[in-house]
Amino acid sequence: MDTAPDELQRIIAAATEAAAHLADTTPTERAQWLTRIADALDAAADELVPLAAAETHLPETPRLRGELTRTTFQLRLFADVLADGEFLAATVDHADPSWPMGPRPDIRRGLVPIGPTLVFAASNFPFAFSVAGGDTASALAAGCPVVLKAHPGHPRLSERTGEIMREALIAAGAPAGAFAVIHGVEAGISALRHPDIAAASFTGSLSGGRALFDIAAARPRPIPFYGELGSVNPVVVMPGAVQARGQQIVEGFVGSFALGAGQFCTKPGVLLLPSDHGLTDALATAVAAVPGQRLLNDHIGKSFRSRVTTLREYPSVTAISAPPIDDDLLAPTLLSVRATDFLAAGEALQAECFGPAALIVEYANAIELQQILDQLEPGLTATVVAEDADIDAVRPLLPALTALAGRLLWNDWPTGVTVSWAQQHGGPYPATTAPTTTSVGTAAITRFLRPIAWQGFPDRLLPPALREANPWRLPRRVDGKRD
Amino acid sequence: MDTAPDELQRIIAAATEAAAHLADTTPTERAQWLTRIADALDAAADELVPLAAAETHLPETPRLRGELTRTTFQLRLFADVLADGEFLAATVDHADPSWPMGPRPDIRRGLVPIGPTLVFAASNFPFAFSVAGGDTASALAAGCPVVLKAHPGHPRLSERTGEIMREALIAAGAPAGAFAVIHGVEAGISALRHPDIAAASFTGSLSGGRALFDIAAARPRPIPFYGELGSVNPVVVMPGAVQARGQQIVEGFVGSFALGAGQFCTKPGVLLLPSDHGLTDALATAVAAVPGQRLLNDHIGKSFRSRVTTLREYPSVTAISAPPIDDDLLAPTLLSVRATDFLAAGEALQAECFGPAALIVEYANAIELQQILDQLEPGLTATVVAEDADIDAVRPLLPALTALAGRLLWNDWPTGVTVSWAQQHGGPYPATTAPTTTSVGTAAITRFLRPIAWQGFPDRLLPPALREANPWRLPRRVDGKRD
Repeated sequence: MDTAPDELQRIIAAATEAAAHLADTTPTERAQWLTRIADALDAAADELVPLAAAETHLPETPRLRGELTRTTFQLRLFADVLADGEFLAATVDHADPSWPMGPRPDIRRGLVPIGPTLVFAASNFPFAFSVAGGDTASALAAGCPVVLKAHPGHPRLSERTGEIMREALIAAGAPAGAFAVIHGVEAGISALRHPDIAAASFTGSLSGGRALFDIAAARPRPIPFYGELGSVNPVVVMPGAVQARGQQIVEGFVGSFALGAGQFCTKPGVLLLPSDHGLTDALATAVAAVPGQRLLNDHIGKSFRSRVTTLREYPSVTAISAPPIDDDLLAPTLLSVRATDFLAAGEALQAECFGPAALIVEYANAIELQQILDQLEPGLTATVVAEDADIDAVRPLLPALTALAGRLLWNDWPTGVTVSWAQQHGGPYPATTAPTTTSVGTAAITRFLRPIAWQGFPDRLLPPALREANPWRLPRRVDGKRD
Repeated sequence: MDTAPDELQRIIAAATEAAAHLADTTPTERAQWLTRIADALDAAADELVPLAAAETHLPETPRLRGELTRTTFQLRLFADVLADGEFLAATVDHADPSWPMGPRPDIRRGLVPIGPTLVFAASNFPFAFSVAGGDTASALAAGCPVVLKAHPGHPRLSERTGEIMREALIAAGAPAGAFAVIHGVEAGISALRHPDIAAASFTGSLSGGRALFDIAAARPRPIPFYGELGSVNPVVVMPGAVQARGQQIVEGFVGSFALGAGQFCTKPGVLLLPSDHGLTDALATAVAAVPGQRLLNDHIGKSFRSRVTTLREYPSVTAISAPPIDDDLLAPTLLSVRATDFLAAGEALQAECFGPAALIVEYANAIELQQILDQLEPGLTATVVAEDADIDAVRPLLPALTALAGRLLWNDWPTGVTVSWAQQHGGPYPATTAPTTTSVGTAAITRFLRPIAWQGFPDRLLPPALREANPWRLPRRVDGKRD
């Protein structure tokens, strides 16, 4: 069912044609489109959720039902962003003959859609990071047509979700080129190289994402590539917390790293424990209680088995739980290593292991803890588990934690990623290829907008956002002051 | 005077060490630093301006005096941005158990400095896009240490400007690693590859900028590269305007394209005129009145002569003014071509010609005009010269103009670039490698900031911008609403 080259050309041509139409819509119109899509997907839940379960081996309840709720909520939240209007960053500087560097012309700045956007869907969230996921929602909200490269892990769900979305969009008045689903590696790469594609986004593996990033950067005209590639998500447990609630930490950690068979980009892959933690037996017991789970697909299974074997066979690594890894149902692997050995191993123990496995790193003192944080590869999240009594000991760690991640958590587990105005899902490479952006939360829309300044333009030729009368009643900055 | 490898290592190590210090400063402190630098540079004008004139062949008055004024104004404007505080995009979402997608934790998002930043200075603005220029000002404002790669076209001015800046910064309490100047191609490339450099910016040629962009993208950990590479800056003259004020347009155009010997990234390189314009003699006369000027340096001279020769010898191109190009003092070249021939030439006539030359393209009708706009390479600016009576004819051109550029002008010339809240200097590639950003105006600061979300953190460990009491009195978005 791979998209043929001529079909791909037709799809991109339609997206390019639709781009001008979309750029001319009001935020209110696009908000209606998003709401319509959300309603249609909610109405189709009883069809879509079993399809997703069949293709991904993820449980329908609560996981897939919850993920669909999250997905349609996200679409509606971007409708709120459009209604709010601040995302347009409308800025008006009136002509000013006494501007200190010399007379200033009338100049007005706002954001316009960047153009046809290529979105690569992820495997591990068949709704929330796939066809109707966050990248699609934010690009459509911005006013960009979306060409969606389906993930081969759930092709039928992708096709069906795409059909429902297209029907909803057309019923809401959008042009046919506003959204399309394509299939196949070759089609995805051809699209990424197509001169009319203006931006691309991706959630997936480091190797796949880097290959696509390199293609985007090597184009005759490079385009922004928003790739979310991988993350170890270290969790620092402070001594006070171990003493106060060791068992609770064990249960929280095992629940988080084994959730969804460890197939989350925010899985806590490394737990830093004081070396006198005394929790080894509790960890072994908690891990043993986790039922075996199937992975999303064979490709992930192969990568997982290879990576976890490397970790398990590493000389200084010991096993807390090392179940068979050739079974179809996989029980979690939990390993342990001393901080000094972890440091000595350099990068060998650092790369993400996508799937049900984690590594305990035992630190003997604050110096070792700091060294570990300084050596860890950046990622999406970094978490601190601590008592109030630990706060003074945590404070000096904050610069290293900040350098490590785009989201810092306190006494919570990183696998949950809320969708809200303040969310940040990103971080220094390899968490993302674009560390100044987020792929979750309302700020994700800015990835698909580019600024334009209009200088001295007649009012009636300006976009409504920048006209003197402010017909859309937007929040604006005028002559340096917020409205 | 190239920076030796061990000296470069020391400089980057100092910048890396300073990064944590800078990240801990308040916006108020950094505003004081910028103001102090501006004051020191203004005080040194009588030393710096003659030095700049000697190294660049640009006139002291009004050009270099004005450029220094612009540069120090820009530093002070970023101090205003810091005082304003909205640049931090502080966003607070309180915990909400009834958040529709599931209970929401307390989550707070703000921006932190991206880290040590490498800035490549330009040759053509020895103050405003060089050592103390816009990239430096915005990166320091963001809280990033700056390693400044000097342009070889004005090495003594660069060194002296850097000394004054360093003295001012240290007197204001900044760490020694906050700013340093390096010299030499090899040092620049080594710095760009250095793992501790977190972002880079550049203003210069397409070939040089693309080579550096490719290096940044090929790093084991790629970093944002903000390159401003080149632009043709087309000007569309509508029939009504030719009739109403042909002579005035001729004078404005020649003044703009020949300004500073055509060495502006915003030089109007292509003027689209209706084919019955009747202004050829007036153009020839106006061009002949422009005195010969020296170019900035031999490298630019060589590139200019090569490119202008290609244009002059192109079969369908005719000369309105084709003075000798081997002289040290260069008179402007003005060429002309019919729209059909321009279209037939494909890319051959499109690339920027940096220096005193421009091309008139004569369009016979609205269809040809639209075709030209559809074929032109994107750039920094696009300009419309029109009467009110032309507005209806301009309206259908707006989508093409918007696709072409980051700044659209009406009855003005693009060479002037004001520094203000609404300015936008950027555009689709090759105008910039990062089309969602600007390198001039207050929004330039966002290039050097990255977002972080703090989830569930104790108030006293949060950055002040996000504490519940809002101690800095910042404008914030709280639970989805602007303060």
